[in-house]
Amino acid sequence: MNHFINLHWETYAYLISLAATAAFAITAVLAIRSDNDIDIVGAMILGLITAIGGGTVRDMILNVPVFWSQDLSFVWIAITASVAALFGRKFFSHRYMFAVMLYLDALGVALFGIQATAKAWALGFGLPVAPVIMGVTTAIGGGLMRDTLAGRTTLLMRQEIYVTPVLVFSMIYVTVLQYFPEYIVSGGFICIIGAFLFRCAAIYWDLSMPAFARVNGQVHD
Amino acid sequence: MNHFINLHWETYAYLISLAATAAFAITAVLAIRSDNDIDIVGAMILGLITAIGGGTVRDMILNVPVFWSQDLSFVWIAITASVAALFGRKFFSHRYMFAVMLYLDALGVALFGIQATAKAWALGFGLPVAPVIMGVTTAIGGGLMRDTLAGRTTLLMRQEIYVTPVLVFSMIYVTVLQYFPEYIVSGGFICIIGAFLFRCAAIYWDLSMPAFARVNGQVHD
Amino acid sequence: MNHFINLHWETYAYLISLAATAAFAITAVLAIRSDNDIDIVGAMILGLITAIGGGTVRDMILNVPVFWSQDLSFVWIAITASVAALFGRKFFSHRYMFAVMLYLDALGVALFGIQATAKAWALGFGLPVAPVIMGVTTAIGGGLMRDTLAGRTTLLMRQEIYVTPVLVFSMIYVTVLQYFPEYIVSGGFICIIGAFLFRCAAIYWDLSMPAFARVNGQVHD
Repeated sequence: MNHFINLHWETYAYLISLAATAAFAITAVLAIRSDNDIDIVGAMILGLITAIGGGTVRDMILNVPVFWSQDLSFVWIAITASVAALFGRKFFSHRYMFAVMLYLDALGVALFGIQATAKAWALGFGLPVAPVIMGVTTAIGGGLMRDTLAGRTTLLMRQEIYVTPVLVFSMIYVTVLQYFPEYIVSGGFICIIGAFLFRCAAIYWDLSMPAFARVNGQVHD
Repeated sequence: MNHFINLHWETYAYLISLAATAAFAITAVLAIRSDNDIDIVGAMILGLITAIGGGTVRDMILNVPVFWSQDLSFVWIAITASVAALFGRKFFSHRYMFAVMLYLDALGVALFGIQATAKAWALGFGLPVAPVIMGVTTAIGGGLMRDTLAGRTTLLMRQEIYVTPVLVFSMIYVTVLQYFPEYIVSGGFICIIGAFLFRCAAIYWDLSMPAFARVNGQVHD
Repeated sequence: MNHFINLHWETYAYLISLAATAAFAITAVLAIRSDNDIDIVGAMILGLITAIGGGTVRDMILNVPVFWSQDLSFVWIAITASVAALFGRKFFSHRYMFAVMLYLDALGVALFGIQATAKAWALGFGLPVAPVIMGVTTAIGGGLMRDTLAGRTTLLMRQEIYVTPVLVFSMIYVTVLQYFPEYIVSGGFICIIGAFLFRCAAIYWDLSMPAFARVNGQVHD
């Protein structure tokens, strides 16, 4: 019975992973700056790096085989989605479609972040803090590479709340794993939902951090 | 007899590797933007990263020892070439000399890309697609780091055809390895030549991708 | 007796490591450009990457477990320091305080660089040159990531002498290790002091490389 539920959980998680991988690639290609040109090969590479870059860095740091070398579906999905985004730019840029992509991206960030935390935890990697770092790395690593390669202001320096949800719920999940290990599955599920809803709220209401937790850089250079 | 031919092939490939490593470093140092300053140490580091960065990332992803830790010639060549480019800027910037460097860079991209594909294939790394990714990573990884560190528009976002030749011939080579494994040497040789000539054509006629495979980002941000 | 001295050396080195890690994070957060916003989470991530990024790359290249997964103090210190720098921007930006941070950063660069050289040497990694590369990588890797993620001109392209001291003394230390291995401890100590004082001089007198070792890029693009 438990096994049955686990199976379901994993199957759903896998399907969501693939959809989110596509969303990562599509939003990357759509976000290319208007004063730059890109061709189909550039778009494929940018989409692929965005989609699998974070998990690749995670696996390199964890010193385990990179995930996509063992399941090429992620590569195929990312490449296909990138090409689709390039040719279907109008379609995907449509207000509603873009919103779907944005929320799918949010789901991906939540899922990949918590999954990575679980993976690092299972490996006993620098408990209890390092799994949180691995969660955040996986969630935003690809996005940071995308911003850097495309010459945009990186997501670290933008107002929108993007990282905080996955950080907060990754910390909560680590607390669960430490003190309530029997909730490893349901706790993980709830943390993914929590991070997703938090990010959804940030998208929907265009939230940024409260003033006391921000700074306008007036800087000593 | 066969062994004799293999030996030749490998010796030539090695010598070309060294020359191409130098070309990577030299073009990196020559490409420094006019509104930036760089000193000899910065030039050495930039040249070295450009020359060996792609292969380093490849080896980290493949989880094998980085190639230059086992043959320091690549390090020495890259450093020497960087310094030469800094002091011999006038010489290397001369029209004909710069063209030589450009074509040597093209040869390096072709050679390193196909070699990396072969290396990943031999390791059974995510067959059949991942070896192509490793080929492209090796070919352009150093260039992407160079552009990022020097603050230039990365080669992914430029009009020129730089990545496509190595991508196409890496895919062809993977097809050869899959279906005609007896042509591993001659096929590799032909794919290197093919990727090189394709890139030469792109340089010579200043080619970019046909309009249908490009997009001018008019973007939803 | 010898053991006693070693213990002291290592304890001091460890304490300096922690202080320098804090300095890396603090100067990173203070250096955020005035036309960008950052929030507390972004600051924490930027500070953490700056503080531990170089050593992480080193360990990935050396193919050993990343140092902070085995001693989370570095993570805690970097995060705490980043938050402190964000809220205590005024305090840390004060002329004298900023100078303290700058010299602490200099001490960190010297210490981490020479330590990394020693680590790579002990692993027999690409002797004799690769340990120098690992020293420089560790010393400036985090800073390069910081500059890239924050959208600044990277330290490779700036006038100030930042890398040269650690490069020079890492080379000297490698010479010591090769020819006078009995001075592994005292030689390391002297090289750290040397790199630190060289960098201090560069800060104090605002030194840049002599004209013959610089170039103003007038470039063939």
